[in-house]
Amino acid sequence: MVKLFDDERLDYLVADEGMQIIQSPTAFSFSLDAVLLANFAQIPIKRGSILDLCSGNGVIPLLLSRKSQAQIVGVEIQDRIIHMAKRSIELNELTEQITMIHGDIRNLKEELGHSSFDVVTCNPPYFKTPSRTEHNQNEHLTIARHEVLCTLEDAVKACKLHVRPGGKVAMVHRPGRLVDILTTFRAYRLEPKRIRLVYPKKGREANMLLIEGVRDGKADLHILPPLVIYNEDGTYTEEAKEIIYE
Amino acid sequence: MVKLFDDERLDYLVADEGMQIIQSPTAFSFSLDAVLLANFAQIPIKRGSILDLCSGNGVIPLLLSRKSQAQIVGVEIQDRIIHMAKRSIELNELTEQITMIHGDIRNLKEELGHSSFDVVTCNPPYFKTPSRTEHNQNEHLTIARHEVLCTLEDAVKACKLHVRPGGKVAMVHRPGRLVDILTTFRAYRLEPKRIRLVYPKKGREANMLLIEGVRDGKADLHILPPLVIYNEDGTYTEEAKEIIYE
Repeated sequence: MVKLFDDERLDYLVADEGMQIIQSPTAFSFSLDAVLLANFAQIPIKRGSILDLCSGNGVIPLLLSRKSQAQIVGVEIQDRIIHMAKRSIELNELTEQITMIHGDIRNLKEELGHSSFDVVTCNPPYFKTPSRTEHNQNEHLTIARHEVLCTLEDAVKACKLHVRPGGKVAMVHRPGRLVDILTTFRAYRLEPKRIRLVYPKKGREANMLLIEGVRDGKADLHILPPLVIYNEDGTYTEEAKEIIYE
Repeated sequence: MVKLFDDERLDYLVADEGMQIIQSPTAFSFSLDAVLLANFAQIPIKRGSILDLCSGNGVIPLLLSRKSQAQIVGVEIQDRIIHMAKRSIELNELTEQITMIHGDIRNLKEELGHSSFDVVTCNPPYFKTPSRTEHNQNEHLTIARHEVLCTLEDAVKACKLHVRPGGKVAMVHRPGRLVDILTTFRAYRLEPKRIRLVYPKKGREANMLLIEGVRDGKADLHILPPLVIYNEDGTYTEEAKEIIYE
């Protein structure tokens, strides 16, 4: 039995396999973004190591553990939220494979060294400056969504520091930040190799961006087929279903 | 009667309106890229000025003249090709609206001054370094397709120099160059505002990229719905038809 605190609840992460995850509407609930990133990232299957930065309640490490035997390390700065992640990992009996580190991604050298992971994933805060209203509403959600403790550059820099030369960095972000993302990736020598744009519905602007860079890679960018999430009637498209229920 | 030289032929540019254009398989034939750029560019309708760089046989000025009364200037470096453009403009009785300048886009200050156009369009050479084989095959096609006389940076710089502050620059290019394109646009203070990715077929990678930047604009990028050109059976999709036959 897992212990739940405050307004926490236990959700099914992957229903047909019984994988569950602790969520909280006021602290952290995972979104589709994390599910898409876990699907998009090209990870080692049999061995190797994966680092997940801005890990939240551990959703990406949990999802990746389903298709890889690599060692997975998650990093989360918020005590309240990493506590949720750790209990979810115990609940799913994944403590041998997944380690959560409570830390600031800007300063992980002591715990993790440098340049050691095969793959780094990151679902960073998206929004540049929180308005005062948003900022004051809820500290947990503000930190997860806004660049209060971690800017885009902090995230990219940390990815670069911890991925091995030739290793891959996969990130999910907003298309509105594409110029910042590409210039920062290149500035930190994470050459963008694959981009996939996610559209909420047919005929609408993209609202999500998946990007993979390779440390010290050569310029050779591929823009993958677009992914549309919802049909006109609000149900998932076939392709979205395949990813979400994979 | 228009005079045709060598292997030139007269093609219909817009069949139902009778607009014709001089083409040559060995010197210059317009491609779908130009048609999509002419459709993508947001141009002034009643008055104003448009500059088209790397204008080739004048396809973009000709297409734009159908929906705008703005003065249009086209610039082309190859004598053989601008000669085709000029005769096409005469043939379509558009000499009052369209002026072709034979010149190098890197050095147009004397002819055009600076910062004067409302919109600048550009369909530059796409490929970085021609292989020796390609380079030697045909000088006209090599110059039009490869960065022999005009690099991406030359093109972006010229767009920046000739567009007015707040004016728009629209370009078509290859998705593989997206990082170069965005970093160069931003470096020359042409802030990317709209991007549209073009896919040959459903489920395939993007093979064309339309981008619009605003001189001295604020960062606010929108990624428009994807455009798919062909159905599985090789016919045009409805959306492609609308653009091509607009």
